[in-house]
Amino acid sequence: MKKTVLRSYARLIAVAGIHVQKGQDVRILADLDQPEFVKILVEECYRAGARLVTVEWNYQPLTKVHYSKASLRALSQVPQWQQARLQHWVDTLPCVIRLLSEDPDGLCGINQEKMAKAGQKRYLVSKPYQDQMENRYQWCIAAVPGAAWAKKVFPDLPKGKAIEQLWQAILSTSRVTDDPIAAWDAHNRDLQNRCDYLNALGIRTLEYRSKNGTHLKVGMIDDAEFKGGGETSLQGIYFNPNIPTEECFISPKRGEAEGIVYSTKPLSYQGQLIENFSIRFEGGKAVEVHAQKNEALLKKMISMDEGAAYLGECALVPYDSPIRNSGLLFYNTLFDENAACHLALGMGFADTIKNYENYTLEECRAKGINDSIIHEDFMIGSEDLDIDAHTRDGRIVPIFRAGNWAF
Amino acid sequence: MKKTVLRSYARLIAVAGIHVQKGQDVRILADLDQPEFVKILVEECYRAGARLVTVEWNYQPLTKVHYSKASLRALSQVPQWQQARLQHWVDTLPCVIRLLSEDPDGLCGINQEKMAKAGQKRYLVSKPYQDQMENRYQWCIAAVPGAAWAKKVFPDLPKGKAIEQLWQAILSTSRVTDDPIAAWDAHNRDLQNRCDYLNALGIRTLEYRSKNGTHLKVGMIDDAEFKGGGETSLQGIYFNPNIPTEECFISPKRGEAEGIVYSTKPLSYQGQLIENFSIRFEGGKAVEVHAQKNEALLKKMISMDEGAAYLGECALVPYDSPIRNSGLLFYNTLFDENAACHLALGMGFADTIKNYENYTLEECRAKGINDSIIHEDFMIGSEDLDIDAHTRDGRIVPIFRAGNWAF
Repeated sequence: MKKTVLRSYARLIAVAGIHVQKGQDVRILADLDQPEFVKILVEECYRAGARLVTVEWNYQPLTKVHYSKASLRALSQVPQWQQARLQHWVDTLPCVIRLLSEDPDGLCGINQEKMAKAGQKRYLVSKPYQDQMENRYQWCIAAVPGAAWAKKVFPDLPKGKAIEQLWQAILSTSRVTDDPIAAWDAHNRDLQNRCDYLNALGIRTLEYRSKNGTHLKVGMIDDAEFKGGGETSLQGIYFNPNIPTEECFISPKRGEAEGIVYSTKPLSYQGQLIENFSIRFEGGKAVEVHAQKNEALLKKMISMDEGAAYLGECALVPYDSPIRNSGLLFYNTLFDENAACHLALGMGFADTIKNYENYTLEECRAKGINDSIIHEDFMIGSEDLDIDAHTRDGRIVPIFRAGNWAF
Repeated sequence: MKKTVLRSYARLIAVAGIHVQKGQDVRILADLDQPEFVKILVEECYRAGARLVTVEWNYQPLTKVHYSKASLRALSQVPQWQQARLQHWVDTLPCVIRLLSEDPDGLCGINQEKMAKAGQKRYLVSKPYQDQMENRYQWCIAAVPGAAWAKKVFPDLPKGKAIEQLWQAILSTSRVTDDPIAAWDAHNRDLQNRCDYLNALGIRTLEYRSKNGTHLKVGMIDDAEFKGGGETSLQGIYFNPNIPTEECFISPKRGEAEGIVYSTKPLSYQGQLIENFSIRFEGGKAVEVHAQKNEALLKKMISMDEGAAYLGECALVPYDSPIRNSGLLFYNTLFDENAACHLALGMGFADTIKNYENYTLEECRAKGINDSIIHEDFMIGSEDLDIDAHTRDGRIVPIFRAGNWAF
């Protein structure tokens, strides 16, 4: 991949992604796959005004070793110095860039129970710090190709070619054009215009219909809002949390979903694919599921906790999104969720409530935001998907026709 | 390189190198060059009883970026959480493995003044913690091939071949045989026997003579001792700080060096080679230097501070050491200093004083241990080097003849 193109991508992440402010620190979380790109990204963060840029390297294969060899006790601890570091982040609010490149199958066979238990214990300690930082700093998730990931997406290509192809796919779907920052400005304006239009309708219910059998009605929370593209932190700084992103999304009202949906892409869960499945909802809850492959796993997933059978997200993505048009399955949610309209089972997003900063999390949940340990996106978009909005004032407004925006 | 051989090397580092104790933590400091080997090393540390193994990854090219782009102020800080981490290490005394693999020319062109100033400021904060850990934990420096380093040692080979050749050179000089741990036991016994012999002589002065013109007398501190191979921490744990090591070394008495030495290998300093040089000493001090290449740099080096013109180390290494026999210049002190007898200008080692733990650093310096910000090894060994010991009871005992041990 040409250096000038990579630098353009790095600049997009530093300037439009985290929108780093002069004198602000930056943390970059990266795997070992693309150190040369990380170096360029560090340079662009400094160029954009960062005070100090720190890279926290991760090597996925070591995660498996630790969860195999170290004790649950050792893995569960958050020593005092790490709490001091969390406090440092609360005090200084550094930007966070997370560069994804992991092998989609890299954690297959890991001791999941041990990992979950240790994670929960560490979470108990770190949560108060995370809550203090919530929505106060800029962050951005973007991707770079790892070798194993590239081979998964392009299994027939040799390693070098596969990495090059995955770079191409990442950069084109991330709108790294001649002027990516201008392209993202235009893209964000488009997403915001659509969200504004949707939010002005006063939607009571979304109704999904497709020839594949999908017919589902989902209720909306009165003061929830569609969001998409860039966000503004509580410090007032506009940033782009996901590169790429194509969706306008909202959290629906827990308890209000009736009908059936058919998946249009496999769902990857715990390292396995659940394929060709349907979910029937009654009173907001998934009451019946079928799957041609891994039906038992799907049943296990929706019974993880009480909220796992309820919806947490409705996301609208046109069928001719750049990612769907690439024809690729990325095996990575950052991309695949932007290939088609999707729903998510599990946790909803409290920040889709208008002026959410004035409410407690409990108040947001009382309004209908679902809560769960899971948040699993699954694709329902297709080339014949129609979506209608039933508005609070009794109109029926077409939102999607034949898989694409109807307005 | 075969996995079984790499595992054998990793086990050597974990078991004989740091000699990790059951329940002890381990820190591994590594560059990004050989992650697969780092994984094997982590596994072997756990297998040897480690509680938790942490890898601190470093990417050398970023060092140059930071010292170019960040402010001196930002680079000089040791935030509170890093001090808490230092305190954590003081409290838990983890073993430290440093895996060298850097490009010998990787920091060429870095802003050295800025790096030195920032380092000095951070050192002011970290020193009290480091002093509390001094000699209380086990550590080990070993090497793995980085691509740029391999290309420097084998400039005519393609990258993959060069890395493979450097692996071979590292493993053979590090005694990774069928049973490396037994080989190191035997090697340590040999080094200890030689040190015991030297220490029993009661040496007053070492006299170096070579046909290249070298004729130098260096005075010894009365209660200093030759050391070599494994060491014992103040916690009583035997470990091997350097893999490989071939030297018996001592710190000479500051102020007692008379005569001239001629270098037998280039000295790499600040990314440049000083070649074919001589140093004349009077009253312990380097008073006259000549070099065919980079004489000005050598003059700058010995005037870094007052102690930079005085000797800090005399190390005895036979001419037919495995490293010299490899015929390679490694461009890395861990190896090159074990290829030939050498001296060092600058800081001496207080722990070469017998029962040094009973003295303050100031008392050790009063005995004649030199102090300086530099410690620069330079090679003086040759195939015709003779060394005699003048003992306190008036004998002259041959130590080296024709470049090799005389006993």
